[in-house]
Amino acid sequence: MLKISLLSIGDEILIGQTINTNAAWLGAEISKLGAKVVLHSSIAGDKEIIKSEFDRLFSLSDIILVTGGLGPTHDDITKVTICEYFDDTLQIDEVTFENIKTLLTKRGRELKEVHRLQAMVPSKSKVLSNSVGTAPGMLFSSNGKYLVSMPGVPSEMKAIFNDHLKALIVSEITKHNHNVVSYLTIQTGGVPESTLAEMIGEVDTFLDSSSSLAYLPSYRGVKLRLGVQESTFEKCQTKLNGYLEYIKSRIQEYIISIGDENNLDTLIQLLKERKLTVSVAESCTGGMLGAAFTELPGSSDVFIGGELTYSNSAKKERLCVLESTIEKHGAVSQETALEMSENVRKLHNTNIGISITGIAGPDGGTPDKPVGTVWIGISIDGDNIAKMYKFGNNRAINRELSVSYAINELFFRLKK
Amino acid sequence: MLKISLLSIGDEILIGQTINTNAAWLGAEISKLGAKVVLHSSIAGDKEIIKSEFDRLFSLSDIILVTGGLGPTHDDITKVTICEYFDDTLQIDEVTFENIKTLLTKRGRELKEVHRLQAMVPSKSKVLSNSVGTAPGMLFSSNGKYLVSMPGVPSEMKAIFNDHLKALIVSEITKHNHNVVSYLTIQTGGVPESTLAEMIGEVDTFLDSSSSLAYLPSYRGVKLRLGVQESTFEKCQTKLNGYLEYIKSRIQEYIISIGDENNLDTLIQLLKERKLTVSVAESCTGGMLGAAFTELPGSSDVFIGGELTYSNSAKKERLCVLESTIEKHGAVSQETALEMSENVRKLHNTNIGISITGIAGPDGGTPDKPVGTVWIGISIDGDNIAKMYKFGNNRAINRELSVSYAINELFFRLKK
Repeated sequence: MLKISLLSIGDEILIGQTINTNAAWLGAEISKLGAKVVLHSSIAGDKEIIKSEFDRLFSLSDIILVTGGLGPTHDDITKVTICEYFDDTLQIDEVTFENIKTLLTKRGRELKEVHRLQAMVPSKSKVLSNSVGTAPGMLFSSNGKYLVSMPGVPSEMKAIFNDHLKALIVSEITKHNHNVVSYLTIQTGGVPESTLAEMIGEVDTFLDSSSSLAYLPSYRGVKLRLGVQESTFEKCQTKLNGYLEYIKSRIQEYIISIGDENNLDTLIQLLKERKLTVSVAESCTGGMLGAAFTELPGSSDVFIGGELTYSNSAKKERLCVLESTIEKHGAVSQETALEMSENVRKLHNTNIGISITGIAGPDGGTPDKPVGTVWIGISIDGDNIAKMYKFGNNRAINRELSVSYAINELFFRLKK
Repeated sequence: MLKISLLSIGDEILIGQTINTNAAWLGAEISKLGAKVVLHSSIAGDKEIIKSEFDRLFSLSDIILVTGGLGPTHDDITKVTICEYFDDTLQIDEVTFENIKTLLTKRGRELKEVHRLQAMVPSKSKVLSNSVGTAPGMLFSSNGKYLVSMPGVPSEMKAIFNDHLKALIVSEITKHNHNVVSYLTIQTGGVPESTLAEMIGEVDTFLDSSSSLAYLPSYRGVKLRLGVQESTFEKCQTKLNGYLEYIKSRIQEYIISIGDENNLDTLIQLLKERKLTVSVAESCTGGMLGAAFTELPGSSDVFIGGELTYSNSAKKERLCVLESTIEKHGAVSQETALEMSENVRKLHNTNIGISITGIAGPDGGTPDKPVGTVWIGISIDGDNIAKMYKFGNNRAINRELSVSYAINELFFRLKK
């Protein structure tokens, strides 16, 4: 296996001002190429700490991918530290400097001294051009291993990875005849982890010793992840298919999708195939369901629009929910959810209307309807069903869960 | 300083199936208490790797917080590894077992063998009760240092941290007379990092050697973060206030907010003070702006509702945008943005209407209106302005930027 470690530099990650989405993105991309991510490490922007971490990661991996600390301001010290580590000096890279000038002109900004500093690179490095920003990536080789430094801005890191590092990783795997690692994910819904584990049974009975099965519970249901390693992707695939058949035979009814797609991709695909359109009426989620439906390009074939009716007045005036319904049953009720889903479907002239109305919290709960009570209504061409869910006390989680249950609920109704 | 390291166990983080939001949350909470997060580390669920990481982290920090690997299935091995590391054995914890039984009854699920395993804890550990889930936390002390193991489910990890670990950290800081670390964040908007750095000038001229200033660019503007360490929070505060005055004198006009709040908190606070209500009309963002406005509790005083008009038919029928406007100028145009913001304001009877219409991509661009072209309209009691933005090629980023520019734009208009 080709072993890769990911190193993020910067206090903003340590103190939680920035969530390390770069490491997650790189981890996913590298895994697709068949290499193994052996660790993520985040450390402060301190020269001595950085250098000793380089030593450690070189001993544990073949390639170190470093992100962060390449911006134009004084607090970005990765570049000077790398220079010291490799006993190197900085020199201007004319191609990078031209690229920076072009980019600034395009954005209508003036050239400053800091921009010249960004075009300085260690003389022993190979410059990896940055097609979307000013700071270039840099590649160093050392005793047959590599260290790559990239900016921490996600779009710039991604561009450099796609333009240069994919090819490097693939060629290293080939050159050294590394085994490739491959994964298959099975998305389930409507069933707890412990029940799934019981249905599938002991893994030793069907997995060989180099393979693994992981259970990953989340708000959108439990994911199962199979991992195998073989000399080729074809052999990996054959082995994964065998395992998949076994798992299907055990838990078929709970499987939502297989492979890369998430529940939402699968649902949108299904809606497109059946030529069904959707509109949404949201109260406590305030637009999150609509945002989810439009996350992916091409959703305009399916998603028409919707009504955000956070206030009762909006529910009445924009969604024509009857005043008497809200007075008698409350805004969070089966009756209101049903009217919302049916009315939004008619008002937007779609096949399907989905409504969410609930008490996201932290306030607004009553003994009858505690925080976390959510009604989800689905109207499909006049066939209306609303279901109640009791989530927990956390506002953000209640909103996330409402969206994912609405998506799963519609999927299972259409699948029937 | 009390030094804390964060260790996450599980392949799902390494291969990017899970973004490490736990580490970010813990980093932020620990920083508020005055302790220093020295590193984050994510490793595979492998016994030997875990044990050697324990050794390393004990040498670098006073407290190790471990998350992950405590679920009910076979792939969760943190507990057994900890037992081996501390030369300990598992025993049933009756309080935990009762807690699990109660929780399962409440959720209408049956007790299984796996649940009994979850109630098994190493005999030398102190059990940290989990008020929201089945897997308890465990505290070990070793040579005056601590190791804490918690489940990886965010809500459970947070409950255990709040119920038990805050007090531990505060008492350790007091017991050892540690210096406390304190941060202050200044949110700016509408100005690039390099310009800010030039306006503020060399940091050595106003910061002492134990203090730091970091520049953190993001889609919502550049954040400045001051960091200081002193024997008490009061002394930290005094020093931070001094630095803040200096920075204010340099960049006052670009400051959106000071302290913990983000742009959105600040905007909602301002709207509440002025008793202004808001509605939104969203096309390419599909609900993300409404979702942002309702992220925080108490937004119902300000946010009334909105129209998701992803399709042109919805723009015409639900928002009364004139057919001739769309035909003549297109759905992504100043004219359409203006009508959307004015009409949503009137239809929802609010003081302010905000509209977003753009080409998020990856398709739909033309030479005139390339992908990334977004019009944002703001109508305040009949005073209507729409501005065009040219973002980039990435759909997700274009949608994020649209929301944050809409928020900043409204903030600066109200602040004038």
